Amino acid sequence: MLRLHHVPLCPFCRKIRIVLREKGLTAELVEVQPWDKPDDLLRLNPACEVPVLVDGAHTVCDSQAIADHLEEAYPEIDLLGRDRAQRNETRRLVAWFDSKFDREVTELLWREKLVKRWAKRGFPRSEVVREGSQNIRFHLTYIDYLYQQRKWLAGDSMTLADIAAAAHLSVLDYLGDVPWETAPGARDWYAKMKSRPSLRPILMDRLIGLKPPVHYDDPDF
Amino acid sequence: MLRLHHVPLCPFCRKIRIVLREKGLTAELVEVQPWDKPDDLLRLNPACEVPVLVDGAHTVCDSQAIADHLEEAYPEIDLLGRDRAQRNETRRLVAWFDSKFDREVTELLWREKLVKRWAKRGFPRSEVVREGSQNIRFHLTYIDYLYQQRKWLAGDSMTLADIAAAAHLSVLDYLGDVPWETAPGARDWYAKMKSRPSLRPILMDRLIGLKPPVHYDDPDF
Repeated sequence: MLRLHHVPLCPFCRKIRIVLREKGLTAELVEVQPWDKPDDLLRLNPACEVPVLVDGAHTVCDSQAIADHLEEAYPEIDLLGRDRAQRNETRRLVAWFDSKFDREVTELLWREKLVKRWAKRGFPRSEVVREGSQNIRFHLTYIDYLYQQRKWLAGDSMTLADIAAAAHLSVLDYLGDVPWETAPGARDWYAKMKSRPSLRPILMDRLIGLKPPVHYDDPDF
Repeated sequence: MLRLHHVPLCPFCRKIRIVLREKGLTAELVEVQPWDKPDDLLRLNPACEVPVLVDGAHTVCDSQAIADHLEEAYPEIDLLGRDRAQRNETRRLVAWFDSKFDREVTELLWREKLVKRWAKRGFPRSEVVREGSQNIRFHLTYIDYLYQQRKWLAGDSMTLADIAAAAHLSVLDYLGDVPWETAPGARDWYAKMKSRPSLRPILMDRLIGLKPPVHYDDPDF
């Protein structure tokens, strides 16, 4: 029995929800509000962060630790790649999205616009949002560049790199913050991701009082 | 033949240097200045970040991708833990230090004081440094708490969690930014780490014009 404690519009939680579906696993989803420091979450993870996966006797904290745990515990469907070069390339790009892209884009847009709103801690700072909006253009160009040379971001099969990237972009796309028109290759890649069944549930999430753009859950956008 | 492209006072590079030594591996060290965007580094890693490990035909970017590669390619000395619970706990704490601690402490002190100086991009902002100095106290208390219950941070053997933590703290300690007197257990743990041969080379690094405190390389501090 798997149970995932998550925030629906958190990129790191979405990464794990997509991984679970791609591996053919189902998990009970428990929605939490980490910014309120709830006791239940603190007991599971002293960092009071999501995602947290409870897998039988194991409690696993941090999205990459969870992804590694799922690779080891459920290896039938492999999301890293079989040979060493492929695994290194997958991991390089997962780190690119979860560290560099996160620091230069997601933190500046998602944290300013959504996390502050949830935590009721002030308003988005326009200079920070502006910086994030500029940075995302460079990163879309990089996705474009990768996709011109490969069938998927890390090579010829769909890997955790595509999942991590789609998790970040899906949250930013909900906010209308992805200038898809500037990077047609990146848009084609994301359309292919959106048509996977593993993405359907996350594209159904809606926030009260904040609608996504009309193209948000449309694979042909 | 292993070659590590690194910055001597970067916590993520130090993590890999310690891992290499703990595994009994030697690597040629190539010092780079990522902030100058050198062509050699850009060719190896389009993110132009360190550390980058070249291992024969493999180029591996990102410290956690490198640590994972070294675990897989040189498994004789294991730094994650043999059973699943131990591996999850190690990975949880590695993520704690490389994400949470990094975001709340290292970025606010090391990036403000050192990276800005290296990149010649402005001066440390006092309010940011103050926030980092406050945050480190909470995190030292957590190390204290872990070490009261265990021989090492993630359990009864030394793991990548200890290495990641020591890598961050060694850089902050160089800057005189670790209030050891507030957390005697954390100090005892760090003294034990400092006495390991794997830490000796990194404690010998010196920056021109910036001396560390006298206790910096003394295991009995």
